[in-house]
Amino acid sequence: MVQEHGLPVLAIDLGGTKIISAVVSADNQVLLKDYCLTLADEGQTAVINRIFSGIDTLLGQTGLLPSQMGGISLAAAGAIDSARGLITVSPNLPGWRDVPLRDILKGKYGIDTFLINDANAAALGEYGCGAGVGVNNLIYVTVSTGIGGGIIIDGKLYSGACGSAGEIGHMTIDVNGPHCSCGNVGCLEMLASGTAVAKEAIERISRGESSSVTDIVRGKIQDITAKEVGMAAQDGDVLASEIIYKASSYLGIGLVNLVNIFNPEMIVVGGGMSKMGDLLLEPARQLVAARAMPLSAGAVRIVTAKLGEDSGVLGAAIFARQQKLI
Amino acid sequence: MVQEHGLPVLAIDLGGTKIISAVVSADNQVLLKDYCLTLADEGQTAVINRIFSGIDTLLGQTGLLPSQMGGISLAAAGAIDSARGLITVSPNLPGWRDVPLRDILKGKYGIDTFLINDANAAALGEYGCGAGVGVNNLIYVTVSTGIGGGIIIDGKLYSGACGSAGEIGHMTIDVNGPHCSCGNVGCLEMLASGTAVAKEAIERISRGESSSVTDIVRGKIQDITAKEVGMAAQDGDVLASEIIYKASSYLGIGLVNLVNIFNPEMIVVGGGMSKMGDLLLEPARQLVAARAMPLSAGAVRIVTAKLGEDSGVLGAAIFARQQKLI
Repeated sequence: MVQEHGLPVLAIDLGGTKIISAVVSADNQVLLKDYCLTLADEGQTAVINRIFSGIDTLLGQTGLLPSQMGGISLAAAGAIDSARGLITVSPNLPGWRDVPLRDILKGKYGIDTFLINDANAAALGEYGCGAGVGVNNLIYVTVSTGIGGGIIIDGKLYSGACGSAGEIGHMTIDVNGPHCSCGNVGCLEMLASGTAVAKEAIERISRGESSSVTDIVRGKIQDITAKEVGMAAQDGDVLASEIIYKASSYLGIGLVNLVNIFNPEMIVVGGGMSKMGDLLLEPARQLVAARAMPLSAGAVRIVTAKLGEDSGVLGAAIFARQQKLI
Repeated sequence: MVQEHGLPVLAIDLGGTKIISAVVSADNQVLLKDYCLTLADEGQTAVINRIFSGIDTLLGQTGLLPSQMGGISLAAAGAIDSARGLITVSPNLPGWRDVPLRDILKGKYGIDTFLINDANAAALGEYGCGAGVGVNNLIYVTVSTGIGGGIIIDGKLYSGACGSAGEIGHMTIDVNGPHCSCGNVGCLEMLASGTAVAKEAIERISRGESSSVTDIVRGKIQDITAKEVGMAAQDGDVLASEIIYKASSYLGIGLVNLVNIFNPEMIVVGGGMSKMGDLLLEPARQLVAARAMPLSAGAVRIVTAKLGEDSGVLGAAIFARQQKLI
């Protein structure tokens, strides 16, 4: 029998744009990394073949057999049924429904395989080797195209009755707000995500408001994303600053709710929007200080994530270790 | 050394109206119970003396010494700092601030003493011997004058960094909603509590809308509480039905948030308003089915609490046992 303790894990972050595959050591170092585009519109088989290809590339580079790995662990957005090993539905993988990706990977490589929601993986990553090391009760919030989350309680991922916990972006904060594609109304994601920021910038600039964002995208207003709005806000553009401030305030309202519900030691904010740093976080922090229960508001630190694009693979690897107790 | 395993616990529920003191056996039976009015406006010393008196009465009836008890455990509303044994602030106890009630009780009786938030206690009670027996991940929501909650994860109370977790009633569900006395805005409690129901009934009837609630309170409109509105709604009164339906819908929005965040196996709804049963719960359940993430919505059972007024003392006793491992 192979001694599994200390074996590296093959970790995959199956994103909407790219697939990151990595070999992660037992002490959470990314030893090797491989990228390819997801190209989800080419269909399920093509995507799965690209996952195989990433794994094969890494195995080739290490010169190890699958059996010399501690397991495979894959993180993906959406409703991931970790217990049954299914990608139930995923916003990044149109047409996928109840895809038994765990068994597909296990069938090919013959080793233990795990699936996990990507925000849950990032939460574990930040807890295990990022901003939240040593913080046993923390909430991870990713603010990107969408808003997701992961809950660490007593040093373990809390994933709920069927692995769906942590859908922080789909909490109603505005009962009279817009309908969300998830079926709910006034979701935090509709008001504070990168998508919301880009949408508001496009609408307001299209209506004639002036902003340096227009120059950044060279007049192609439909190309505006939250990144450009953030850049303009950082440079003091008034419209962009207003839009980011508004999103940050909505984010703050979501964080107040989390602080009152969880009384966490820390909230780690990751995802693309978190690269704006205090521009995004400071108004949210002020809202928490002003509105959350004083004991809980005083106890929480609200910080940006540390791991960047590696959070998914690092967290997926930690998840595999926790599941296997390796 | 006294063998502590199996000893009864002196459990106290310090409510806004009355103080319930009880002797609770190791198998969660209320062996003896004593009541007195809280009369908080008589001041802190008077209330504490009434707590002493309740304990003394029960000790007298049992014929046991304090040292023959497993401990004292007291549940109260508000921000209870369980770790430091303080009643930080409590809506039911005006003027109390950082009162070291644990040490006051321990000083008098010389045995281990514990303080716990009353909704957290009720959560433990329903988990230990009520509606949630055997359900390791559940959320308890009390809908009464205010709205509070308790979170059971892996069979244990999750109380957060400093014992303040579970303030479910103070989650913003309407960013443009009314200001709450807690300092937050559009809190669930402002929209779905018994207080909100009574307030809306009084306002609408005062404006001239007709309702059988007016007859129930014999024309004394200012005396209307949620109880009368619930009674009238049960009898088909249109205005009362509308008001209860609206509160239930707001409650449902809060439950959708909890379902998406926690993916719990069960939500137990207690408190005075829960006596309305399906009149309150059914619209909320329908909202969860329509709006929450399908996997999570399918996994959760939303039920009424079973323990009634004993939930606080039973939960407080369970808390003491969990803390002492007795």
